Amino acid sequence: MIKSQVKYIQSLSHKKQRDEDGVFIVEGSKLVDEMLSATNVDLVELYALESWAKNYSHLPVEMIALHELEKISALQTPNQVVGLFKKPVITSAVPLHEQLMIMLDTIQDPGNLGTIIRCADWFGIETIIASKDTVDAFNTKVVQSTMGSIARVKVVYTDLEEFIARNPRLDYYAAALDGAPLAGFTPIEKGVIMIGNESKGLADKLLARATHKITIPRKGKAESLNAAVATAIILSHC
Amino acid sequence: MIKSQVKYIQSLSHKKQRDEDGVFIVEGSKLVDEMLSATNVDLVELYALESWAKNYSHLPVEMIALHELEKISALQTPNQVVGLFKKPVITSAVPLHEQLMIMLDTIQDPGNLGTIIRCADWFGIETIIASKDTVDAFNTKVVQSTMGSIARVKVVYTDLEEFIARNPRLDYYAAALDGAPLAGFTPIEKGVIMIGNESKGLADKLLARATHKITIPRKGKAESLNAAVATAIILSHC
Repeated sequence: MIKSQVKYIQSLSHKKQRDEDGVFIVEGSKLVDEMLSATNVDLVELYALESWAKNYSHLPVEMIALHELEKISALQTPNQVVGLFKKPVITSAVPLHEQLMIMLDTIQDPGNLGTIIRCADWFGIETIIASKDTVDAFNTKVVQSTMGSIARVKVVYTDLEEFIARNPRLDYYAAALDGAPLAGFTPIEKGVIMIGNESKGLADKLLARATHKITIPRKGKAESLNAAVATAIILSHC
Repeated sequence: MIKSQVKYIQSLSHKKQRDEDGVFIVEGSKLVDEMLSATNVDLVELYALESWAKNYSHLPVEMIALHELEKISALQTPNQVVGLFKKPVITSAVPLHEQLMIMLDTIQDPGNLGTIIRCADWFGIETIIASKDTVDAFNTKVVQSTMGSIARVKVVYTDLEEFIARNPRLDYYAAALDGAPLAGFTPIEKGVIMIGNESKGLADKLLARATHKITIPRKGKAESLNAAVATAIILSHC
């Protein structure tokens, strides 16, 4: 690899660069395979160890040495291949107001967002509405923890108050500690499930716009649930 | 801090050292506060920046400089204080065969185990039975992601086949991709919920001992769910 290539791949750890170029990074043989088989994700280039590259010679793959892989990988233990892909184009046949959606207010942990995207995909959610300060869905740690679901779930970054103002007729279900028990609401077939920041929860101005407040009943003593876990539990009851 | 203290705190990143001394590390003001207020967790010593230490002068706290905190902290952004505590003594008034328990087979990600412990605490589970190769519950990353629940949930490391052999009359509910839908089983009030490794699932020899196989119904396309998420969803339906 020439130095400028290494620098370019490294620069894609910044959202600004990813946005400008419309690309993102996928690491490891399993996840790269999954992206290669996704019809809506276009390959730009692969950088791989010889042991991997020799089986993919029909694709644009550059053979690299382990020390080069270590330089361009964001993983503690790099796994054979780093792929550069165009961001997926995700379309839905269902209009927004007929969908069950998730709204995320300031989710900051990449692992949480990745897990939420993966859960959304499991439960057939096609759209996530995220506040502009939520971690970027194409952050490498997020992508890795989606386990491939990044190709199937659309994450739209927008001002959440404006989204609500533009879509006033939807039902908004806020996950909160002082709501009514989850079981009383289900099944929820459409509308928006609102999930708040890991430590602060939902902003008051968003909570004020919720049409319903949902609580996951607690039997023990933990103060709260992890944001991704709360999302998953609510979706599993929808 | 003298060099030997720094080395000792660092040595507690190893399970062997933690086990020998019966201690573990807790980081950050919120979590340390929670441990200080837990009646079953004894404090050994605190190492803290002056800004924090001055409010805790009634306790054994050693004032340290930021560069020292950075040396002994496992966090990317150290947070004011590192506490050394005796491992909690957790007892239950309920005999094992009357409890709802979680069994973990080779959970490797510290964040997953921490999240499972936190969920267990939310749903009132008092005991987790973990395979010997499951990540240690007193690993600092696990402790941090339990958000304090480490003081309330007992994690017992044992040979899982032997546990089942010793407790043959319990109901064993295996989380699997080819089981019967979750809704058909609930509520589950006692017995053991079996959760498998992040990538391989439950070992065949354990699956063979399950009395029931549970599946979380899928509506979308994700291949699987995160282990902590699957645990949380099942518990929320119990």
